[in-house]
Amino acid sequence: MDADGCGSRVHARIYPDAVAHNLAALRVLAARATPAPRIWATVKADAYGHGLCRVLPSLADADGLAVTQLADARACRDLGWTGPILVYAGLLDPAEADRLALAGLHLALSHAAQIDWLAAAPAAAAPPWVWLRYVGDIGYTGFDDAGYAAAYARCATLLAQGRIAGIGHLNHYGRAEHADGLGQADRRFQAVTRGLPGPRSCCNSAALLRHPGAAQGTDWVRPGLALYGASPLPGIDGAALGLRPAMSLHSRIVGIRDVAAGARIGYNGTIVASAPLRVGLVACGYGDGYPRHAPAGTPVVVDGHAATTLGAVTMDLMPVDLTALPPIAVGAPVVLWGTPELPVEAVARHIGTIAAELLTSLTPRVRVMSARAGDRPPQAACR
Amino acid sequence: MDADGCGSRVHARIYPDAVAHNLAALRVLAARATPAPRIWATVKADAYGHGLCRVLPSLADADGLAVTQLADARACRDLGWTGPILVYAGLLDPAEADRLALAGLHLALSHAAQIDWLAAAPAAAAPPWVWLRYVGDIGYTGFDDAGYAAAYARCATLLAQGRIAGIGHLNHYGRAEHADGLGQADRRFQAVTRGLPGPRSCCNSAALLRHPGAAQGTDWVRPGLALYGASPLPGIDGAALGLRPAMSLHSRIVGIRDVAAGARIGYNGTIVASAPLRVGLVACGYGDGYPRHAPAGTPVVVDGHAATTLGAVTMDLMPVDLTALPPIAVGAPVVLWGTPELPVEAVARHIGTIAAELLTSLTPRVRVMSARAGDRPPQAACR
Repeated sequence: MDADGCGSRVHARIYPDAVAHNLAALRVLAARATPAPRIWATVKADAYGHGLCRVLPSLADADGLAVTQLADARACRDLGWTGPILVYAGLLDPAEADRLALAGLHLALSHAAQIDWLAAAPAAAAPPWVWLRYVGDIGYTGFDDAGYAAAYARCATLLAQGRIAGIGHLNHYGRAEHADGLGQADRRFQAVTRGLPGPRSCCNSAALLRHPGAAQGTDWVRPGLALYGASPLPGIDGAALGLRPAMSLHSRIVGIRDVAAGARIGYNGTIVASAPLRVGLVACGYGDGYPRHAPAGTPVVVDGHAATTLGAVTMDLMPVDLTALPPIAVGAPVVLWGTPELPVEAVARHIGTIAAELLTSLTPRVRVMSARAGDRPPQAACR
Repeated sequence: MDADGCGSRVHARIYPDAVAHNLAALRVLAARATPAPRIWATVKADAYGHGLCRVLPSLADADGLAVTQLADARACRDLGWTGPILVYAGLLDPAEADRLALAGLHLALSHAAQIDWLAAAPAAAAPPWVWLRYVGDIGYTGFDDAGYAAAYARCATLLAQGRIAGIGHLNHYGRAEHADGLGQADRRFQAVTRGLPGPRSCCNSAALLRHPGAAQGTDWVRPGLALYGASPLPGIDGAALGLRPAMSLHSRIVGIRDVAAGARIGYNGTIVASAPLRVGLVACGYGDGYPRHAPAGTPVVVDGHAATTLGAVTMDLMPVDLTALPPIAVGAPVVLWGTPELPVEAVARHIGTIAAELLTSLTPRVRVMSARAGDRPPQAACR
């Protein structure tokens, strides 16, 4: 039952081909700049919940991978990635500086103690690059205008000693999805790094998608969310940007009941049937990572028909409204997100969150499998 | 670095001893009834996020385990559990009825098609018990007053044919945490099952903890959340009920910055510093399963001191307010929930959710390790 998808409640289908498509699309956007910047493909949070092991082959054309922590860089190497790896958290503690065993590491540094740790550590066999993170718009992490030059000078000393392999400059936009989201941020970053040698890295997905000229003057861009086909721009879905969703989430109807007008159902009777109601139960709940606070009206697709939830998501189940739909049978397939009719961005909007949270929040209970766009859902094959 | 906990950002510590304590405490409550009911220990959602493999040895004294789906029952057997297993979802499809290979299965049935599937399937080598689920307070799943007797009659035929091993009656309370939460529900369940042979199963954690007499007349109780030390009763934490938390969630401070009054920080400047602010960055975010919508003011403990979040949880980080605290260093340990000072229930209240959602929502990125109460956090040993 596990091999063919039967016997599972919720499952996520991952489309590696979509990731390859999206990377190529982002490269076209980046290549509007001359020279074209290189691409760090951001694969933190296990490739935004898609599974690094599943999508890594689709990222063969990336120039580097970007991860959260050093342990993730090791995972990339274990999976066979031989290119550069950028570690956003840099070093978490002195012990990490003491044990830099991987070649091709690029460490983003956000505060002075990290430079202390590098300086005090034994020389690494393969010295890492460091990237100084500017405090930028986000404002709570990174070197500020007062401290940036001193941090650079300390790193330059380490570079001269052969303790590190190079120094880059990194800025992270805090509001790149807005029309005026880059101008001031770029001016501040250019001012603080003026005259300092070394490559620059700016541009997340939002900057690349919203600002055609954003990549000009940057050496490395760092798309994340868009690699997985979701849009970081409010009100615009990935498909409208030429992206393809890399994950769809599926389950099925496991119960159907007709409820009389006036009935109160669910824990504490939170759902009130204002009219006769046909309730379908979807085998998906917060124990799978679907948000418990998803309100009534959140869209789902039941057996190909648009439908909405009734709220009251439990650990294992969520009730949906089948009243206006054609007859639906127990076992009917349900799409929670990720198909052309139901982009993850639309679901996120209804829930009041962002696509990145939905994609990264699936729990270990959800079965994840690789697929190709257009494949029939596996449970359809065994009903 | 992985062996001793260094190099990890977020980690959960699981206390199997607490689970054993809580099971014993719940058995004392159940034993107020004569005869004392048996206990299904609910371990769905991988033991409420604690890891079935970690807590199973602590449940050796349970009379049975209760899981969501048949695949979970297999996992219990694979881990060595030889006792009865109750499957809340019963059968998801006819294929599951065709392949009932495990002995000691108890299937909760919620709709008539599940009986059809059992009747049509080849006889199982070890026929399962079935438990008819009454629709009860929840109202959207189970057999209702009109259909219960017919469902029983059909199962009685299967029993006479040796196709099933027994028939039980199951009710699930929808508002057991309230003073008047059981009376009407019990009366309805007693009425619909009156005169029908077979054991009864009622009583979730809330019923056992809130209603001293609730277990009278039921043969099996089904605690879940309380096994893990969290309270299902509003405004009352598990400790006040004699329970011990079975999970604590930990991370550390990975950055500290002083921000001037008037500054706007975070994505889109959503955090406004109304006064000079010392911001600590905790290495934990929605990519770990911590809710993105946790509002400013959600409690955390930093280096032993009570503190609060500043909102704006990102995938990897959450800012906390260190302004009023004694000096805190980068690397300082942070408790997200689950210690005596910071019960998971308190965190859930601030976020507007329930403890069960927090406990079950951790993503695969979170390292989970077994521990004993009072152990030093592992990162303290290697700083």
